[in-house]
Amino acid sequence: MMRAIIVTPGVEDSVRLDEVGEPDPAEGSVLVETLMIGVCGTDREIIAGEHGQPPPGTDDLVLGHESLGSVLEAPRDSGLTAGDLVVGIVRRPDPEPCVNCAVGEWDMCRNGRYTEHGIKGLDGYARERFRLDPGYAVRVDPALGDLAVLLEPASIVAKAWEHIERIGKRAHWEPRRVLVTGAGPIGLLAALMGRQRGLEVAALDRVVDGPKPRLVTDLDATYHVGDIEAACADADVVIEATGAAELVFEVMRSSARNGIVCLTGVTSPGRRIEVAAGLIAHQIVLENDVVFGSVNANRRHYEQAAHVLAAADPDWLGRLITRRVPLERWRDAYESTPTGIKTVIALAASAESRSWQPPR
Amino acid sequence: MMRAIIVTPGVEDSVRLDEVGEPDPAEGSVLVETLMIGVCGTDREIIAGEHGQPPPGTDDLVLGHESLGSVLEAPRDSGLTAGDLVVGIVRRPDPEPCVNCAVGEWDMCRNGRYTEHGIKGLDGYARERFRLDPGYAVRVDPALGDLAVLLEPASIVAKAWEHIERIGKRAHWEPRRVLVTGAGPIGLLAALMGRQRGLEVAALDRVVDGPKPRLVTDLDATYHVGDIEAACADADVVIEATGAAELVFEVMRSSARNGIVCLTGVTSPGRRIEVAAGLIAHQIVLENDVVFGSVNANRRHYEQAAHVLAAADPDWLGRLITRRVPLERWRDAYESTPTGIKTVIALAASAESRSWQPPR
Repeated sequence: MMRAIIVTPGVEDSVRLDEVGEPDPAEGSVLVETLMIGVCGTDREIIAGEHGQPPPGTDDLVLGHESLGSVLEAPRDSGLTAGDLVVGIVRRPDPEPCVNCAVGEWDMCRNGRYTEHGIKGLDGYARERFRLDPGYAVRVDPALGDLAVLLEPASIVAKAWEHIERIGKRAHWEPRRVLVTGAGPIGLLAALMGRQRGLEVAALDRVVDGPKPRLVTDLDATYHVGDIEAACADADVVIEATGAAELVFEVMRSSARNGIVCLTGVTSPGRRIEVAAGLIAHQIVLENDVVFGSVNANRRHYEQAAHVLAAADPDWLGRLITRRVPLERWRDAYESTPTGIKTVIALAASAESRSWQPPR
Repeated sequence: MMRAIIVTPGVEDSVRLDEVGEPDPAEGSVLVETLMIGVCGTDREIIAGEHGQPPPGTDDLVLGHESLGSVLEAPRDSGLTAGDLVVGIVRRPDPEPCVNCAVGEWDMCRNGRYTEHGIKGLDGYARERFRLDPGYAVRVDPALGDLAVLLEPASIVAKAWEHIERIGKRAHWEPRRVLVTGAGPIGLLAALMGRQRGLEVAALDRVVDGPKPRLVTDLDATYHVGDIEAACADADVVIEATGAAELVFEVMRSSARNGIVCLTGVTSPGRRIEVAAGLIAHQIVLENDVVFGSVNANRRHYEQAAHVLAAADPDWLGRLITRRVPLERWRDAYESTPTGIKTVIALAASAESRSWQPPR
């Protein structure tokens, strides 16, 4: 038996720490000791009963899709050995895959029959040990250390940037300015990747306190609190990471000609808002604007993300992890604060005591 | 002196047939006799005083951006000779071009300093003769005959399809179904190009009378009057050609996962409509949807369009031209009817008397 953070999807505040059985060998040939998991808004939605789906035949779901673990056992031909640092991929294609899943692009699944660890039909990583098929375990450079817990959110942003660039190449493409809305983990990693591409970056958020402003300016990007016009008119690329629908429309209005707006933030459906009809069927057309959504990531994006993290300043990355909670105090980890960025839960005793910094 | 259809932009119903001077040799080295011009919604907006801009130093603009002419004079090194059928390109880059205009992608102009024949800062083709630089005259196969007046609208659709496919290739891309909303010239040409790609095509319009239904079914596509769900749920590609903002949102909602919605229709700005917030910051994200606008075309798209028209059934193309008006009755041409498709004005006596069909 081992400890796990469990929720009954659809039942508000059913989340609890409980004992569960060891991972079933049918889950995969690679056995991993969980070092830490990251917490994000999707976890909070599942806890609120608004999202999530248990595996078939049960009412409960082990939470956690952002992981970092250490290999305990792996088959000789898996490319992994005991002690390797690994991150588990979140989404898995259906055994009868669609045309996109069949070529490994499960982030673009066409029929919705995918599963997701800790979210949809598959137990997550918030348990002391888990098992994976080698194809869904991404080995990370040990030099990254604990910072590799950022790999999953970075994979989401790597996919967003990959699609932005592929869409940009529909025509001649020389972007200059990037606007990121929301300086949470996704927004900050998006700003990092914009700077890694040599672009001018502006970030817009609501808070003036806490580490966000300094994290942005330390990238030689500009931090703004206020309206979009003041932050960055004429952005060639906008990465929207708040999910605030009103902001989405403001962003569409203020982007440059041929601008590409990438939506990554999810808001709850239902509420209705008013928009100018001409924004859609006038400005978007006459300016060749693009608005697109990006969700999830496939293995290629996790590998891109590993390069992104390796090329970043480890001190800067470490400052994204603003809260580290031991498993015993797991409940604290799911409280959200506007100035905080990424909260992680340390599951292994070794992870609790290790320093933030990776070995140099 | 020669006859021209002239408007004073910004002044409602100022449109008139009048005498103007012969085209200035500074307009280009190729002198063209205008055979016919096509009429579209943009012309009607200009006539209504809602759009359009005269050339510098005058209040008046010669109308007409969809053209077909016959070369009268051309320099020896222009690649054109007297008697060639040519279509004039609509947009021209600024003498100090932006990075996109500099490589010939003036349809993606970044600074808005382009001009457009018959629309923005440049006289149009609704005059008995015009001049062009050879780079802005597209020679068309004489076998197309009068049908080449469809080249300009077809270039708009060729660009839309090029961008759809380039955007589609952000990931593995195997589209199956296409929905076209609005069975006017743009929608019908979009349906044609969808069928030329071997895709299933559905078209949605409001009329049951007139030639539209048969034109669609003659493409082995399906014609629908009613709601989008009934016409085509799960379209991988939607080409929206009505400009009705409410329809734009319905289309965004009903498209398939990874769906690409291309907006080509322009509505007047100002009016406000209500939409579900979750459509934007929920469904678009979770389904990797793309919505983009497409306007205008560069020379490459005119050449793509020439291939499209050459590969189509000339009888079918001829049926798109539902009204042919001699210059003397020009005013009739600007009246819009819901069952009509493309109206053309025959400027040259030869064009008035020629048959619809191209020589076989």
